[in-house]
Amino acid sequence: MLPRGRPRALGAAALLLLLLLLGFLLFGGDLGCERREPGGRAGAPGCFPGPLMPRVPPDGRLRRAAALDGDPGAGPGDHNRSDCGPQPPPPPKCELLHVAIVCAGHNSSRDVITLVKSMLFYRKNPLHLHLVTDAVARNILETLFHTWMVPAVRVSFYHADQLKPQVSWIPNKHYSGLYGLMKLVLPSALPAELARVIVLDTDVTFASDISELWALFAHFSDTQAIGLVENQSDWYLGNLWKNHRPWPALGRGFNTGVILLRLDRLRQAGWEQMWRLTARRELLSLPATSLADQDIFNAVIKEHPGLVQRLPCVWNVQLSDHTLAERCYSEASDLKVIHWNSPKKLRVKNKHVEFFRNFYLTFLEYDGNLLRRELFVCPSQPPPGAEQLQQALAQLDEEDPCFEFRQQQLTVHRVHVTFLPHEPPPPRPHDVTLVAQLSMDRLQMLEALCRHWPGPMSLALYLTDAEAQQFLHFVEASPVLAARQDVAYHVVYREGPLYPVNQLRNVALAQALTPYVFLSDIDFLPAYSLYDYLSPRCPALLPCSWVLLLRASIEQLGLGSRRKAALVVPAFETLRYRFSFPHSKVELLALLDAGTLYTFRYHEWPRGHAPTDYARWREAQAPYRVQWAANYEPYVVVPRDCPRYDPRFVGFGWNKVAHIVELDAQEYELLVLPEAFTIHLPHAPSLDISRFRSSPTYRDCLQALKDEFHQDLSRHHGAAALKYLPALQQPQSPARG
Amino acid sequence: MLPRGRPRALGAAALLLLLLLLGFLLFGGDLGCERREPGGRAGAPGCFPGPLMPRVPPDGRLRRAAALDGDPGAGPGDHNRSDCGPQPPPPPKCELLHVAIVCAGHNSSRDVITLVKSMLFYRKNPLHLHLVTDAVARNILETLFHTWMVPAVRVSFYHADQLKPQVSWIPNKHYSGLYGLMKLVLPSALPAELARVIVLDTDVTFASDISELWALFAHFSDTQAIGLVENQSDWYLGNLWKNHRPWPALGRGFNTGVILLRLDRLRQAGWEQMWRLTARRELLSLPATSLADQDIFNAVIKEHPGLVQRLPCVWNVQLSDHTLAERCYSEASDLKVIHWNSPKKLRVKNKHVEFFRNFYLTFLEYDGNLLRRELFVCPSQPPPGAEQLQQALAQLDEEDPCFEFRQQQLTVHRVHVTFLPHEPPPPRPHDVTLVAQLSMDRLQMLEALCRHWPGPMSLALYLTDAEAQQFLHFVEASPVLAARQDVAYHVVYREGPLYPVNQLRNVALAQALTPYVFLSDIDFLPAYSLYDYLSPRCPALLPCSWVLLLRASIEQLGLGSRRKAALVVPAFETLRYRFSFPHSKVELLALLDAGTLYTFRYHEWPRGHAPTDYARWREAQAPYRVQWAANYEPYVVVPRDCPRYDPRFVGFGWNKVAHIVELDAQEYELLVLPEAFTIHLPHAPSLDISRFRSSPTYRDCLQALKDEFHQDLSRHHGAAALKYLPALQQPQSPARG
Repeated sequence: MLPRGRPRALGAAALLLLLLLLGFLLFGGDLGCERREPGGRAGAPGCFPGPLMPRVPPDGRLRRAAALDGDPGAGPGDHNRSDCGPQPPPPPKCELLHVAIVCAGHNSSRDVITLVKSMLFYRKNPLHLHLVTDAVARNILETLFHTWMVPAVRVSFYHADQLKPQVSWIPNKHYSGLYGLMKLVLPSALPAELARVIVLDTDVTFASDISELWALFAHFSDTQAIGLVENQSDWYLGNLWKNHRPWPALGRGFNTGVILLRLDRLRQAGWEQMWRLTARRELLSLPATSLADQDIFNAVIKEHPGLVQRLPCVWNVQLSDHTLAERCYSEASDLKVIHWNSPKKLRVKNKHVEFFRNFYLTFLEYDGNLLRRELFVCPSQPPPGAEQLQQALAQLDEEDPCFEFRQQQLTVHRVHVTFLPHEPPPPRPHDVTLVAQLSMDRLQMLEALCRHWPGPMSLALYLTDAEAQQFLHFVEASPVLAARQDVAYHVVYREGPLYPVNQLRNVALAQALTPYVFLSDIDFLPAYSLYDYLSPRCPALLPCSWVLLLRASIEQLGLGSRRKAALVVPAFETLRYRFSFPHSKVELLALLDAGTLYTFRYHEWPRGHAPTDYARWREAQAPYRVQWAANYEPYVVVPRDCPRYDPRFVGFGWNKVAHIVELDAQEYELLVLPEAFTIHLPHAPSLDISRFRSSPTYRDCLQALKDEFHQDLSRHHGAAALKYLPALQQPQSPARG
Repeated sequence: MLPRGRPRALGAAALLLLLLLLGFLLFGGDLGCERREPGGRAGAPGCFPGPLMPRVPPDGRLRRAAALDGDPGAGPGDHNRSDCGPQPPPPPKCELLHVAIVCAGHNSSRDVITLVKSMLFYRKNPLHLHLVTDAVARNILETLFHTWMVPAVRVSFYHADQLKPQVSWIPNKHYSGLYGLMKLVLPSALPAELARVIVLDTDVTFASDISELWALFAHFSDTQAIGLVENQSDWYLGNLWKNHRPWPALGRGFNTGVILLRLDRLRQAGWEQMWRLTARRELLSLPATSLADQDIFNAVIKEHPGLVQRLPCVWNVQLSDHTLAERCYSEASDLKVIHWNSPKKLRVKNKHVEFFRNFYLTFLEYDGNLLRRELFVCPSQPPPGAEQLQQALAQLDEEDPCFEFRQQQLTVHRVHVTFLPHEPPPPRPHDVTLVAQLSMDRLQMLEALCRHWPGPMSLALYLTDAEAQQFLHFVEASPVLAARQDVAYHVVYREGPLYPVNQLRNVALAQALTPYVFLSDIDFLPAYSLYDYLSPRCPALLPCSWVLLLRASIEQLGLGSRRKAALVVPAFETLRYRFSFPHSKVELLALLDAGTLYTFRYHEWPRGHAPTDYARWREAQAPYRVQWAANYEPYVVVPRDCPRYDPRFVGFGWNKVAHIVELDAQEYELLVLPEAFTIHLPHAPSLDISRFRSSPTYRDCLQALKDEFHQDLSRHHGAAALKYLPALQQPQSPARG
């Protein structure tokens, strides 16, 4: 009890002062609109126990985020500590956020795209992606971002190959290989003026706005340089099995799937020497890294604990098989970043794996076109080409009956080249790539096509994001397809009502890597012998006499000497779902005579192939020259640098005819191959041909396209284009041209 | 300056006390983990100006939310007030949130599903949906939620028809019609024990967790009962055109697309009388409501302003043509709820419509299956049937080579019946519905089918959510399809790798509304005359003699007297893409003789239809009875209550054969119709048949299914099932059975 009188008043004043000070401490002394964390005291019971929480973020919104207990001995019973977790400051409005990702190969590129989709879905800031890639990932991601045209996203590429020497001396047992070590060299690899960056593994998924993560930089003390989430496994405790000897780490150590890096401070602190010294020293007694960069980061941090800022565990919820992640989120549905850090990925065993799997599939299947939405809050430079595109689209007349055609022509489709692992064929001077395009309803053609064409293929697939995943599973489930590394699949993402057939063909054509291409369609199966006939391979150990017997190869036709020629592969068709494919020209002629085969479109549209002169072909022993005629649309083998298809022809009609016109206008010689043939299999009419047949507007629009095509032709070829005028004024073929 | 000595000490104490009190006020006196809004003062400059903000929410996270200026004269220049907007308390963890929606008809039902998807995507709480529906919406939504099986979502239905008399006396000019007024009667229509509910229009989309909205109930004063966002248009200012006379409202009035209702307080305050009195009085001088319930809500609030709690504008961003919404979100990318409150919906003209449209499309196309993810934080009762399903799935052996088949059989597909507007046919005693199923690659069959079958159809479509939208556009673009109200389209959402053909057939069959069904396949076109032949319609004004000439109708066959009979429609096929469909049996026979038509599967699998006895059919003048034989799979007309298809047959094979076995086992008589025929059009083989042909495992699994089918058959039919044993042990047909 306090004494009366003056001392009592003083005592009251002291008490009040104490209370006020306490209040001031609790509320951070900031009386503005910004709020600070009332429970923000290191080690406060029920909030942040454990000796390894060096400094608690004093502020913010992350209401129910929990930090995983840093005490190595802590059991799974400390759940309810998380109710008053750390709260970051408000996300930085319109600030440019930098993200670095190391990515190599086809599969990692797909992962990165899913990661980026989740990031873009929630982001509200402009982003600059720094991608350290091998040549494969660069080709994929450069094309993807170029065609994706997402506003307020800049992408820079860095050559992983150039960084390899800096880490290749480190023996590493982790499945990520050498690329798994490259995060160590980011401070020197990224531009010197870049001070902060978020570094991400390719197997993380965002469940929140990345700017909230960026905001955590504000909690770094003056000396901290690395923000990390604690490991959610007991790996670094070294007690998983007898003689388990992990790299040194503070307690459970940290996971490097999500890192905040103060690059400026690391450079200043001599990071390069620091990690190298540590790694070299540890490698004296340890044979290799087990978890790649993560082992080295942890060893450095053990030595320099002042470098690390511990991040709330929700920013890297680790879903390995024996994860302790549940301790992190069981009280917090506010998951921020999910990390599939098991080699099993989605097949990991986890109590809530269905939840996480569905969350991941959300972005895997998400229509990336929808992420083209602008950030209307932050001013930003539009992606290259976007402004012209916007202008062109704005100039279209919505009342024009052909508006749909015009819009489709202008659509820039997202393109994901080499969606699946692909080995380019070894260079051969006369090799030929089969080029075709398809959508989901023709997948069942792929196996047969692989059996008929043993050479390289470049196929464009018109798919939604969700269909691309179905396609992936389809290939994985097929031994025939999975065995072929020389088939390149390029996904062109669907957008708009009309099938962009020629844009698809051009994507496949542009990605062909051999000197010659066979421009085919997906419903055709070439003769089993066609590939070897065109481009004979001399078996390594056998006499090559059978090759010499072949009467026509690209080489013998003199195409090697850059003559402009298009080799015509005569086309036939069967109306049977199942029939015995002829093994030779003799067998084919017998089927033709028996009425089991017809020349292509014999019933509906004979003039599409009439100039091939089937009667002459029956007898031909050597290639023969034919003349272009109206509506001719043969399947041809041409040099890879042949003219592109005209992308104005979308939907049904004239798409291939126009290409042959262009070849002829550019004076390509048309040579029919005497031993070559290809056979069309039956299928139901496409949606586009149904629309063509039922809609006069559709036919009128196609005529308008043809007229414009001819105007362009005249511009390029002058009076020579007059030759094609009558053909352009003829009625359209009733089948896909 | 303060006097010295004791008074000085007292003065210091007083100052401290003052400071402490100030601190206490500012921080709400709560020193726990919960935070209150420091700037939470009504009318604080730069934060909440305007006389119409009766009480400012004192707290929370909604950092940058701005309230639209309540001052009718305010210009568009008052943007930056929003930087320290109101912040709600933390969302209530695991509390059950109640949501009420009025929904009538096919189109609104689709809207509600998109709304619900957006809500489920962000929600972290269990939800109870209270749906006031007409019979159409109830059938759709009941089936949908039953098959969706979303954890922690309860759904209750209320009959809109029973509520109609309470509002039908109000003349209303709004496009929503009578249903637009029903929100007024929710306090009496919803259960008496329900105290709080969020009421939503069908055309809103969530961009945030609904619990943040629910949390705003905490800001209601003791007398407030209705939470609303101000109107983002000048409608109620009454100055849009000369003599524009809107209903009375406070300033711009409030928008009722999103309402927080304290039902308990409204009931206590005599809401029913209150709004009726106001409405009656206003209708003395106004002819009708223009904006339905919203006019009446506003008129009541004008009279009783104490009822309303103003909500931050981000909770109802209104995208009408001349919206002022930009004032609300231009400083806040934290949009919470988007309201498409223009009759133009997505075609509304708006500066940022691309952003909003893409956001909306996100949920329109979102795979609803992914929302089945459990709320692992909150305990909840699983949806009906979910537990048994989980158990059955858990019992499957992942190593079983037929695991995929087992899993597919157990899959419960989300079903959206009558996806598009549909008028049930007027009841006729012998009417027949054509029943079939398809996926996206057969859409082009629909127009032809409509031309061939003028009667009702029930079609199941196996689609993804995104494909369902493509399908919608396809029907809208087709005059033939758009004109038909008697074709019911039921969307069954895709899940799993195998085509659930019999589950699809059962959905279509269950939704047929006529006494008889014609069980067809989508690749078949029936004879033009078949529908009238089966179920002759006597033209109202013409003599009915032509009808009498028909030799077989369901009535004449005596099927009306409930005899168990299956009328066989003989099946043929063409291998031509285009051919002239025969108009009579005579024409058909001529084509058959000319080799243009064949009996169905004549080349590949004649025994599938051999029992039809085509030779007898050529000559038949009257229906004749045939006997079941192994592998028989005719197309039949049967009573609607016929046996269902066996859902164990997924993918290719035996799906229809098993159904005919079941019909025969149940002693259905097989009668071939002499004038009926149906013709199969060519198409490429399905993915499933390709897998069947290439995979021995697939064939083995099908055999296992057949064995199990026969075991069940024996259980049900005893020794009689022995008859089918040899058939089940025969090799499988090479084409879809």
